[in-house]
Amino acid sequence: MVTEDEAMRRAIALAARGLGTTSPNPVVGCLLLSPEGEVVGEGFHAYAGGPHAEIVALAQAGERARGGTCVVTLEPCNHTGRTGPCSDALIQAGLRRVVIAVDDPNPVASGGAATMRAAGLQVATGMRRPDAELGNIAWLTAVRRGRPYVTWKFAATLDGRSAAADGTSQWVSSAESRADVHVLRSTVDAIVAGVGTVLADDPQLTVRDLRDGSLAIKQPLRVVVDSHGRTPTTARVRDAAASTWIVTTAEAGPGPDGRVDLTAVLTGLFERGIRNVLLEGGPTLAGAFLAAGLVDRVIGYVAPKLLGAGRAALVDAGISTIAEALELDFTDIAQIGADLRFTATLRPKPSDHPAHRPSSE
Amino acid sequence: MVTEDEAMRRAIALAARGLGTTSPNPVVGCLLLSPEGEVVGEGFHAYAGGPHAEIVALAQAGERARGGTCVVTLEPCNHTGRTGPCSDALIQAGLRRVVIAVDDPNPVASGGAATMRAAGLQVATGMRRPDAELGNIAWLTAVRRGRPYVTWKFAATLDGRSAAADGTSQWVSSAESRADVHVLRSTVDAIVAGVGTVLADDPQLTVRDLRDGSLAIKQPLRVVVDSHGRTPTTARVRDAAASTWIVTTAEAGPGPDGRVDLTAVLTGLFERGIRNVLLEGGPTLAGAFLAAGLVDRVIGYVAPKLLGAGRAALVDAGISTIAEALELDFTDIAQIGADLRFTATLRPKPSDHPAHRPSSE
Repeated sequence: MVTEDEAMRRAIALAARGLGTTSPNPVVGCLLLSPEGEVVGEGFHAYAGGPHAEIVALAQAGERARGGTCVVTLEPCNHTGRTGPCSDALIQAGLRRVVIAVDDPNPVASGGAATMRAAGLQVATGMRRPDAELGNIAWLTAVRRGRPYVTWKFAATLDGRSAAADGTSQWVSSAESRADVHVLRSTVDAIVAGVGTVLADDPQLTVRDLRDGSLAIKQPLRVVVDSHGRTPTTARVRDAAASTWIVTTAEAGPGPDGRVDLTAVLTGLFERGIRNVLLEGGPTLAGAFLAAGLVDRVIGYVAPKLLGAGRAALVDAGISTIAEALELDFTDIAQIGADLRFTATLRPKPSDHPAHRPSSE
Repeated sequence: MVTEDEAMRRAIALAARGLGTTSPNPVVGCLLLSPEGEVVGEGFHAYAGGPHAEIVALAQAGERARGGTCVVTLEPCNHTGRTGPCSDALIQAGLRRVVIAVDDPNPVASGGAATMRAAGLQVATGMRRPDAELGNIAWLTAVRRGRPYVTWKFAATLDGRSAAADGTSQWVSSAESRADVHVLRSTVDAIVAGVGTVLADDPQLTVRDLRDGSLAIKQPLRVVVDSHGRTPTTARVRDAAASTWIVTTAEAGPGPDGRVDLTAVLTGLFERGIRNVLLEGGPTLAGAFLAAGLVDRVIGYVAPKLLGAGRAALVDAGISTIAEALELDFTDIAQIGADLRFTATLRPKPSDHPAHRPSSE
């Protein structure tokens, strides 16, 4: 027998298994409890077009869910997309009670709670909402803003250098940090880099070397911001390991600085169903994203090294005085091998406001 | 009744209360246990010339220590300096057993354990040695190297900037971090800054605003590295709040770069009895200390801000390629208010070797 709170913790953990493969959908986890409080079914949403978490759990539980409780991280959908509405499925299965962490912010899919209440089910919302929102932060933010959630990732020394004076940068961070980056990449839909990084380091920008030995079931889209189309035909980002979008000014249009319009890039990615983007260098592209207010989160791998010279981790973010510094809040600090990894979210500026709310299934 | 291990933990905590006031002596804490294991006396060494920890504890315990155990963080001294040998005092008091964390590395004062053994006492060494060594790291390192232990402290943004492009730097770090710096200053014997910092910020470089409301019982010596004697007569570092040494090339001689010889500065400080130095900016002076291999520990206050331009936290450390990067190990990571504080120690280079071992009382 488990409590509803324990069931919700498990559902949130299950939901996270879908990170990187559900877009444009959110991640969702679900547990079904029998009237006696036994777990009779569990599921998570694994990929867009596949069964929703509730449907997976209902298929496991069968008749044992009748009269029981559904514990689910996101409000069950109320509409028919590639699959039928989950609210109806729960009503048909004879559930007595539904416990929801987060309301669906998507007007196309929401309304499931009201439908189930109208059918006589007991519906409670808000259990472990902060944890569940954090698990779905990319999708929730993307739906709210109408553009993908953007995480800027960088590696630097204690004094903020990403390369030495002679340009060398191999292994600024440790093997453990590099492995951690592959796990991070496996949770996103696209990886964005500037052509400068492609020309300097020729990275492949794929998910490799996952620590649990699993293969990445879906490679993120590789995006190269390349105003003048200088990506070599032999660049590794063009190989067959994953899809690639080389985005030029000719295609996306110029931004205020005459280079590729980054807002247009993100809009284009959103339209492709991408909700979660990892921005990986270089310092100039990161500065342009930050100056445009297009970064939601920063993950830094800080190596216990000092250089005192060499390339800064970030340049040209449009800030000239301390009062204009971009403000963040640390949300996590961890040691990864010999390195320190911090996660920090950008504080919203007063000018930030909800954009349109596009549909998702 | 306490165990010897519990007593040693308490002795190490007591010892730390002397940080900042005992130089040129180490910090030492001591507990005396009766034959039944009750604490009958405790003490710490508070200032050079004052009673040693063992003597303070013996005065409390009186006859109750007879037949009991002395638990002490450092080997009791065996010589007569400003006070008599502690080894004799423990023998006279009739102690049966002595438990020591760290052997005294100072040849002038060591030998206490052997003296007590010869007198028939049971002597055990090494209990909680790593913790006790950490508590005395500045003194132990200073005695080993023949120069003060040097901690470089800096504050910077996530991207390693200590000031914005226009030079503004006020409140890069939070009020909590600034208060923490005053606690840090209260544990050292001297604070070192470059004349550039004095000219730019006019800092007072004193201990103020201790969080527990206590006044600093001893202000560290203020040291300004000022090759050409440019410190204004009206500079706050020259006020009456603490002693100040303005060290010029004319006085200390030139180093390899033609500016003040930093090794000579540290030797001069060691000769004044200083064992623990806090180096506080600017980036150029920090680079010179690091390039000369004269930094033992780095404490960074990292504010959750981004600038993308402005003064780097560190410049000119004599490193041009990534393979030459100075390597450190994190020893502590903490959140201080909104900021992150890391502590990291420099890895010794293969060329490092023990220097002479000067005396201390």
